[in-house]
Amino acid sequence: MIIVLSKNVTKEETDSILKGISQLGLEPLYLPGTEKIVIGAIGDERKLQTLHLEALPFIEKIIPVLEPYKLVNRKFKPGETIISLGDVHIGGGTFTYAAGPCAVESRDQIIEIAEQVKASGAKLLRGGAFKPRTSPYSFQGLKEEGLRYLKEAREKTGLHIVTEILHTADVERYYEYYDILQIGARNMQNYDLLKEAGHIDKPVLLKRGLSARLEELIMCAEYIALAGNSRIILCERGIRTFETAMRNTLDLSAVPYLKRETHLPVFVDPSHGTGDREIAFIMAKAAAVTGADGILIEVHTHPDRAESDGKQTITTGAFTRLVQETGELLEVLRRQHNEH
Amino acid sequence: MIIVLSKNVTKEETDSILKGISQLGLEPLYLPGTEKIVIGAIGDERKLQTLHLEALPFIEKIIPVLEPYKLVNRKFKPGETIISLGDVHIGGGTFTYAAGPCAVESRDQIIEIAEQVKASGAKLLRGGAFKPRTSPYSFQGLKEEGLRYLKEAREKTGLHIVTEILHTADVERYYEYYDILQIGARNMQNYDLLKEAGHIDKPVLLKRGLSARLEELIMCAEYIALAGNSRIILCERGIRTFETAMRNTLDLSAVPYLKRETHLPVFVDPSHGTGDREIAFIMAKAAAVTGADGILIEVHTHPDRAESDGKQTITTGAFTRLVQETGELLEVLRRQHNEH
Amino acid sequence: MIIVLSKNVTKEETDSILKGISQLGLEPLYLPGTEKIVIGAIGDERKLQTLHLEALPFIEKIIPVLEPYKLVNRKFKPGETIISLGDVHIGGGTFTYAAGPCAVESRDQIIEIAEQVKASGAKLLRGGAFKPRTSPYSFQGLKEEGLRYLKEAREKTGLHIVTEILHTADVERYYEYYDILQIGARNMQNYDLLKEAGHIDKPVLLKRGLSARLEELIMCAEYIALAGNSRIILCERGIRTFETAMRNTLDLSAVPYLKRETHLPVFVDPSHGTGDREIAFIMAKAAAVTGADGILIEVHTHPDRAESDGKQTITTGAFTRLVQETGELLEVLRRQHNEH
Amino acid sequence: MIIVLSKNVTKEETDSILKGISQLGLEPLYLPGTEKIVIGAIGDERKLQTLHLEALPFIEKIIPVLEPYKLVNRKFKPGETIISLGDVHIGGGTFTYAAGPCAVESRDQIIEIAEQVKASGAKLLRGGAFKPRTSPYSFQGLKEEGLRYLKEAREKTGLHIVTEILHTADVERYYEYYDILQIGARNMQNYDLLKEAGHIDKPVLLKRGLSARLEELIMCAEYIALAGNSRIILCERGIRTFETAMRNTLDLSAVPYLKRETHLPVFVDPSHGTGDREIAFIMAKAAAVTGADGILIEVHTHPDRAESDGKQTITTGAFTRLVQETGELLEVLRRQHNEH
Repeated sequence: MIIVLSKNVTKEETDSILKGISQLGLEPLYLPGTEKIVIGAIGDERKLQTLHLEALPFIEKIIPVLEPYKLVNRKFKPGETIISLGDVHIGGGTFTYAAGPCAVESRDQIIEIAEQVKASGAKLLRGGAFKPRTSPYSFQGLKEEGLRYLKEAREKTGLHIVTEILHTADVERYYEYYDILQIGARNMQNYDLLKEAGHIDKPVLLKRGLSARLEELIMCAEYIALAGNSRIILCERGIRTFETAMRNTLDLSAVPYLKRETHLPVFVDPSHGTGDREIAFIMAKAAAVTGADGILIEVHTHPDRAESDGKQTITTGAFTRLVQETGELLEVLRRQHNEH
Repeated sequence: MIIVLSKNVTKEETDSILKGISQLGLEPLYLPGTEKIVIGAIGDERKLQTLHLEALPFIEKIIPVLEPYKLVNRKFKPGETIISLGDVHIGGGTFTYAAGPCAVESRDQIIEIAEQVKASGAKLLRGGAFKPRTSPYSFQGLKEEGLRYLKEAREKTGLHIVTEILHTADVERYYEYYDILQIGARNMQNYDLLKEAGHIDKPVLLKRGLSARLEELIMCAEYIALAGNSRIILCERGIRTFETAMRNTLDLSAVPYLKRETHLPVFVDPSHGTGDREIAFIMAKAAAVTGADGILIEVHTHPDRAESDGKQTITTGAFTRLVQETGELLEVLRRQHNEH
Repeated sequence: MIIVLSKNVTKEETDSILKGISQLGLEPLYLPGTEKIVIGAIGDERKLQTLHLEALPFIEKIIPVLEPYKLVNRKFKPGETIISLGDVHIGGGTFTYAAGPCAVESRDQIIEIAEQVKASGAKLLRGGAFKPRTSPYSFQGLKEEGLRYLKEAREKTGLHIVTEILHTADVERYYEYYDILQIGARNMQNYDLLKEAGHIDKPVLLKRGLSARLEELIMCAEYIALAGNSRIILCERGIRTFETAMRNTLDLSAVPYLKRETHLPVFVDPSHGTGDREIAFIMAKAAAVTGADGILIEVHTHPDRAESDGKQTITTGAFTRLVQETGELLEVLRRQHNEH
Repeated sequence: MIIVLSKNVTKEETDSILKGISQLGLEPLYLPGTEKIVIGAIGDERKLQTLHLEALPFIEKIIPVLEPYKLVNRKFKPGETIISLGDVHIGGGTFTYAAGPCAVESRDQIIEIAEQVKASGAKLLRGGAFKPRTSPYSFQGLKEEGLRYLKEAREKTGLHIVTEILHTADVERYYEYYDILQIGARNMQNYDLLKEAGHIDKPVLLKRGLSARLEELIMCAEYIALAGNSRIILCERGIRTFETAMRNTLDLSAVPYLKRETHLPVFVDPSHGTGDREIAFIMAKAAAVTGADGILIEVHTHPDRAESDGKQTITTGAFTRLVQETGELLEVLRRQHNEH
């Protein structure tokens, strides 16, 4: 339940509500806004009847929240969450490119790619140091060495690093290396990791699981938010269906759905979503049209020599063209948006 | 296998090849183009070795076709198929709107909607007279009466009619009413209906089945083409997955995939693909960006009073805005396309 | 809604109820049983309030039916539907084998197989004369010639014929050839065909579509029943999922679910359900344990020479063993059932 | 590749092969059996050509292993893996019941249930102390307190404990509490946890992920085996499909498939697989027929009062009947098996 307080509410009145909620066994949330104070109550809402809130003069409005997600619910917050990293602002009408190779393969590789995607307009550098692979006999990433190369690429280019952390203990251990903590599709429901991500002061990029319903994805974001961190980017990356023509089925309709249900920014990963570089290029542009706040795309100087995922990776040249073409579409979209 | 003949090939030489293919038990295809003659051979290609085609002087090139689809294969035809209906040209860089209600409900309803969508830029009028419904107790359409109203709407507006025909016998019976014969998702693999659609001289819009792989959709188009009609529009309309937030999962990546594999135009139906009017509006624009040749969209003057599918139907006002906004995006896309 | 009348109800009283239901725009159903008369009312049940049925002395019980399926609903009928063909009784505790090749390939083939499966205990002979195939270039069945061979096999062995009819017009045209009309998975929602099957006086075997929810399967049976034929066998034959290790995912839990929801017999087709003869053999036995009333299984004297589906076809020798082993399990199951 | 050595091979000869494999960059495996020594080589098998193994007199046979899984591959080991815990032997023809509540709720609850399922024939006690839940606001389990109750139940009844451990660090921390470490469906591809499970000297029960292909499940077992622990039980627990009638689609055909591909015991969890206690009861018996080595089933003295999953939980009374009825079927199956 959301309780909007009147403008001239006193601190005592506010505290009395918070205390009342708490005594009934629900969790009170204090959400001060620029104009008004909003209070949330999470738990069995029926119990709140005994408080007779509707009779209190300093309460302006009471809004029930039927969805199981509360903190990340669009209803809980007027406007969209904007996540700022230095002068990069994710959400709120911008479109941000996170580009880079599937895996960090060497110092030279990551730095060369970083410099090129930076020049083309990327603000974030993606690249995996820990690669969860189906086979124990496949390349598993450079691990900490890879993280060090990412850090060096950051220092050289000013790009912010988005990289996947697989284990709870690593969230703290490798804190210095990532600017945005990525939680991968296989870990979407690793609740311990979600809670740990809720304790840091850096943004989290949460990927949708291969067979996760959108409500489940949102509930995982709720885990992170409830643990204290609401700087969350949701990421659609393709779901598993019966179709075998492509690696996954990229569900672009998830973007407007997630943006209507939550106040969080939404990214799209067209590379994993399709497994095919030509189609990924096209779907990246389509993602912008669906209202995505950015993309996570695999880019390599030499995709055909990549250790993993080469087939779905575009060249740095194609990335330059993608940014240019998407930019032209975004210009039109923004004008259309303003006319409304 | 595709056999490209030299420019100066004689009729006798051409016939000898066709006869040779035929005698080996394969089906020969004679495909004369504006510049060159192409011959196709469908069946067990290994048998063709005995013809020693590679040694014949009047043969320019031999291209094996590994895919199970031949006639609709992109390799079988240089350029895209363009389907013309009067001055409407589907495919080849245009973007065509097929708009109208889910079901024809009354004479006034369909004529009013037809006039409005025509004014906004639609070239095709969609509307169902026979409605396949999950329950035998639901509204099943106005049937032939509905077709008569569609015909009247065509006469009044000049719009071409796209409407679903459910049964083989109805293809001929209702020939006068449709300009484009629609084969619905549930009938995608009704092979008798496909063959019947192959015998008419009107275009066919073939919808992807709820659980059809893209290769299966293409094979169904092959059935129609083999029966004699290659004016086929493929239509992505959402697939059935585990996701329950929306009615179906709209697979927009199917568009570039189908356009790469076949020479046929591809439409998208965002209404059934999402089941949600707000999201359908957005996905229609995204479809244009993926390279679709048009959309099939549910439009109604009063969606909330519609007999069926109201939730996924946009208003005529929204349709006007959609055409305007999509047009601005298409302008950018065409400029980008030409720069390549 | 189901209305159970008292034992001593008069004809006039019964008629008055039927008339009252009819006048309110609902469809009345007269369902006389051996002990009591039951009346059904199909349509908007809220309207029935004006009849004040609960006040009538000759009404024993009123049962609302919330499910969208009525006639095939377990609630509409005490006991299970038993379908009798001569001395073969399907349902009600028996277990019936429908065995035979995927496709009728020749006179000798079908007669030889028929004689062998008959000797092993099959009561029904399966075999396709019309084969719906993904590719137009694949073997499509012997058509009417195949039906004639099936008829001859019936005359020689006394087996009843289960064979697929693809088109509405063929239901009547080939009436003499089939004893049980099979509607295939691709045609499950071909409503015209369902209605036609509702007009014949022979049983119908209705296969679940590749992506059909169980409720949709039941609604298709409702179409047949509403058209007049309630001798329907439902058939689980595997659904399409993301799993690629086998041809389909055989959903055996559908059996107890369908038997709880409807009063119809339920068969299982383990051949298409798995696409693998070894696993089909095992799943056939498991089907018996889930409460299935029979199986539809592909059997061939020489599976490896079969025109289609050889990989999933068991030998006649294996079939003999299957009947033996399943019989031993059924004996145990019947004893367990009686002890309850 | 599998290399079977002759009976009279010397230690020097064996070592020379192992060394040769190692020097080529492949991983050598030394697998001494009761009669013969088998050597495995994991990696790029083409490199082994330079060893000219086929020419060596002390090599009896060379078997290529095309599947990506090696150690758990049926080809790598003659016979089935049998996992012994005291006098309980899992695999090799036995059928083991792991029964108990979804979650440990209190000391009395778990001890009462444990005593009852023990009396009915269960050998393993299941019960969750850490419950991964979709919502952060749901009951998350009693955690360590729950583990202590499980331990007490073990002491009182002699049942072995199967319980889920969610996090890598907990594998060691809670080592004393579990006898079989359960890895849940959401964690199937938590590779760090798999590796940790590979370091312990207790068996691991690995559940199939909601959208995991069988090959992926087997590869996860390979991760555990490669880390050193080959006492692994695979567990089918239902997959996520489009069907909404039940909680999941229980894929019983996975059992014979997994047993053909690997040498590991396979369990079935019909409770999560169906989400419906009546159907779970039936599917448990069907699982026995498919060749499963045991089941994991939710049993409670008062299912309707259970904190979680009550709908899919059978009573202790039903469990007694299940063991009885399944036992009668198993007797028949064993006789059938021996006759072959």
